[in-house]
Amino acid sequence: MPDNPELASEYSAFRDGLVDADFLVRSDIDGLYGRTDKFEDIIEGIDRLVVELGSDQNAKVLRFPPVMPTTVFEKTDYLASFPDLTGSIHTFTGNDKAHAQLLQVHSDGGDWTDLLDPSGEMLIPAACHPTYPLLTGTLPEGGRKLDVYGYCFRHEPSIDPTRMQAFRMHEYVYVGTPEGALAHREQWAPRGLKLLTDLGMTPEKVVANDPFFGRAGRMLAVNQRDGELKYELVVQTYPGQMTAVVSVNYHEDHFGKPFNIKSADGAVAHSSCVGFGMERIALALLATHGLDTAIWPESVRELIYP
Amino acid sequence: MPDNPELASEYSAFRDGLVDADFLVRSDIDGLYGRTDKFEDIIEGIDRLVVELGSDQNAKVLRFPPVMPTTVFEKTDYLASFPDLTGSIHTFTGNDKAHAQLLQVHSDGGDWTDLLDPSGEMLIPAACHPTYPLLTGTLPEGGRKLDVYGYCFRHEPSIDPTRMQAFRMHEYVYVGTPEGALAHREQWAPRGLKLLTDLGMTPEKVVANDPFFGRAGRMLAVNQRDGELKYELVVQTYPGQMTAVVSVNYHEDHFGKPFNIKSADGAVAHSSCVGFGMERIALALLATHGLDTAIWPESVRELIYP
Repeated sequence: MPDNPELASEYSAFRDGLVDADFLVRSDIDGLYGRTDKFEDIIEGIDRLVVELGSDQNAKVLRFPPVMPTTVFEKTDYLASFPDLTGSIHTFTGNDKAHAQLLQVHSDGGDWTDLLDPSGEMLIPAACHPTYPLLTGTLPEGGRKLDVYGYCFRHEPSIDPTRMQAFRMHEYVYVGTPEGALAHREQWAPRGLKLLTDLGMTPEKVVANDPFFGRAGRMLAVNQRDGELKYELVVQTYPGQMTAVVSVNYHEDHFGKPFNIKSADGAVAHSSCVGFGMERIALALLATHGLDTAIWPESVRELIYP
Repeated sequence: MPDNPELASEYSAFRDGLVDADFLVRSDIDGLYGRTDKFEDIIEGIDRLVVELGSDQNAKVLRFPPVMPTTVFEKTDYLASFPDLTGSIHTFTGNDKAHAQLLQVHSDGGDWTDLLDPSGEMLIPAACHPTYPLLTGTLPEGGRKLDVYGYCFRHEPSIDPTRMQAFRMHEYVYVGTPEGALAHREQWAPRGLKLLTDLGMTPEKVVANDPFFGRAGRMLAVNQRDGELKYELVVQTYPGQMTAVVSVNYHEDHFGKPFNIKSADGAVAHSSCVGFGMERIALALLATHGLDTAIWPESVRELIYP
């Protein structure tokens, strides 16, 4: 999804404001930012609320580094759906002589990264992906719930700070029966709405509109829309633009099948998840209440800085 | 540095113990693990102590995602020194037709990742690297101190769980005069030793022995050793093997020069840093005191679980 050109000046004004007010630091690449403690304090405040919401889930806590095996990635539909967003990790595997050549290409100003070899590792595109290989086999009665939080990567350079290339997602995942998966999603949509409303925002729940790639992608997008498999909770971040900050997804057997996960009754497991886009919620708060957090509504301040 | 083959069974026994006792979960790739809450609680306990140690530094807090621009990487000596540890990020940049070909290669069992293009982004090899481009220019009197914490990547698959490919490093960085840089290092070495000693370990400070690559690397290694530019704080994790868990580095003008950073007097800035290897400290604790944290020495428990 390209940036909306009509909002370009809004995007850059918000971004520059965030930098000037010491929330983010820029890099040479659009969508890659450093975070200051002022920004991280907001993230931590939001996360405290997310964890509170999830405290009744009895979810297994798992934290992953930003990298997972390519074999896991290959079992998902991601390459078909979002090839342009993927991040594959490549490294140098040659000998001394090849190293000398690599350094020569670099010092001649050539693209030395093109001479590297795939490491068999990918950046994680969605927090829950590395969990599914751990569930291969038959699940206990009632299924499993997981609490996953970590950095995700999506290669979509943008001047809009709400579209970062590297960002954190906190997910509660359910894997089990179709009914359980749907119930998990139905449980979390109102919780997400409540969290955003408590934070003084005006969220709406809409059918998701993911940026599936190309011709094949257009079909997948129609499937997703018509099946109402994914909803997003959106809030206004720019005049006339709503930004998705939370998503609730019903995966059907999209993960259960390739990862060979069965529910207790022996059927292919279905799954669902809620994903809180941590940076996006923080940025939506700043867009809604302004860059001076000292004058945010007291009720919001009490939740974020308890 | 290849694994010590004589310790292979020790490595795999420790790794399997960590998995059985629910600290780590394995993936298909050596050196990539998920972390459970039991493990993360130890990391948080250690980090509280690190932050306490750094509370007098008046350091600017910066948190980076695991990814940085390749242009930053290229200004360091990393490609010359450790090409085999690097992680370059590649993605799909083609059209619909190229996408169809990519999917065909994948479904034929070929290496589709080889068809991707460099994104201009790298995984961060050491927490402080993305900070230097922010300091270009002339520093204030007294230099700058930074507090940086984040995931680093080093492609060194190993069955030894203390050699993860993706791990967190918490650093305090100084950039300013040569005297200031040396003073920063001299201040932090005893602080690191105290932290490890307080945690019931028996650390030693040794001259670092980094795994520089190839022939050119052997020269760089000699320079590092003879110049005593880097020390490591090591603790015993396996019988007869000491593992570096903290490092204190004097960079000379290694970053000041390429990033065009000047101290207040107009000279090229020198820098130094202390880096706490968070996973390694946690694993050294588990190796030292055992996998049952309930029976760790009370003084250690009070520090980690206050």
